[in-house]
Amino acid sequence: MDFLTNDIDVAALYRRYQELQEYVGWTPADARQLQSLAALLEPHLPALVDDFYEEIERHPRARAVITGGQEQIDRLKGTLRQWLRELLNGPHDAAYVARRWRVGWRHVEIGLDQVYTVVALSRLRRGLLRIHGNCFLNDPATSWSRAGF
Amino acid sequence: MDFLTNDIDVAALYRRYQELQEYVGWTPADARQLQSLAALLEPHLPALVDDFYEEIERHPRARAVITGGQEQIDRLKGTLRQWLRELLNGPHDAAYVARRWRVGWRHVEIGLDQVYTVVALSRLRRGLLRIHGNCFLNDPATSWSRAGF
Repeated sequence: MDFLTNDIDVAALYRRYQELQEYVGWTPADARQLQSLAALLEPHLPALVDDFYEEIERHPRARAVITGGQEQIDRLKGTLRQWLRELLNGPHDAAYVARRWRVGWRHVEIGLDQVYTVVALSRLRRGLLRIHGNCFLNDPATSWSRAGF
Repeated sequence: MDFLTNDIDVAALYRRYQELQEYVGWTPADARQLQSLAALLEPHLPALVDDFYEEIERHPRARAVITGGQEQIDRLKGTLRQWLRELLNGPHDAAYVARRWRVGWRHVEIGLDQVYTVVALSRLRRGLLRIHGNCFLNDPATSWSRAGF
């Protein structure tokens, strides 16, 4: 499998994903814990998605790859909400990995400097942690910090 | 500045770093909070560094780029401890960014698939959060989860 083309070998891609899960110590228990938080986080996803695109507006080199105006941004916001729901709910199976791969490939095709994908995901992670922290402010025993998220 | 060569323009690199800090919402207050934890985390860094290299041993495609045997690994462990100390203590100035850039470039030179840098840093982040969580188990008010780390 050539990871630099869009020629997807889903089985190979999934094996690679599983190796990377092992690398970070991700287990089925983590997936269950994440899923248990999905309903709690769901009401906050639209604000997180709005923040995601507001930040892009502040960075011309990221903003430049969105050429379809507000109509495209509205569509992309729906896609990101779905992306977040699948992240939280799983299942993180081969079909999920193939969908993620195609999203990543699309960002290559439009010429986005990949550093913006790194910081955008970092901002999303920080937002998810902040929302989670606010939800559990009085119940630290369930904190993701404890779980090592 | 060509970000794909080792021809470093430190001023341009630092401006880019500052843009990325803004992207993730990083502020001087975060740097101060991080520095305030450095002494607390310091005793745990050697175990974190050992874990870092033990995980590499489990992944042949990552392990393959270390060609100098145990002697090289011991040297790299010292470098990583120093990398972590600078991460925690700062200052995150232009000289820091230039040093980070050279470390990154070295990983390009030895041909490491960059996905391993992503998961290795993810594992380090998770380890730092776990250590921090253990240190503050009875004092959730100071948790990095609350700070959105």
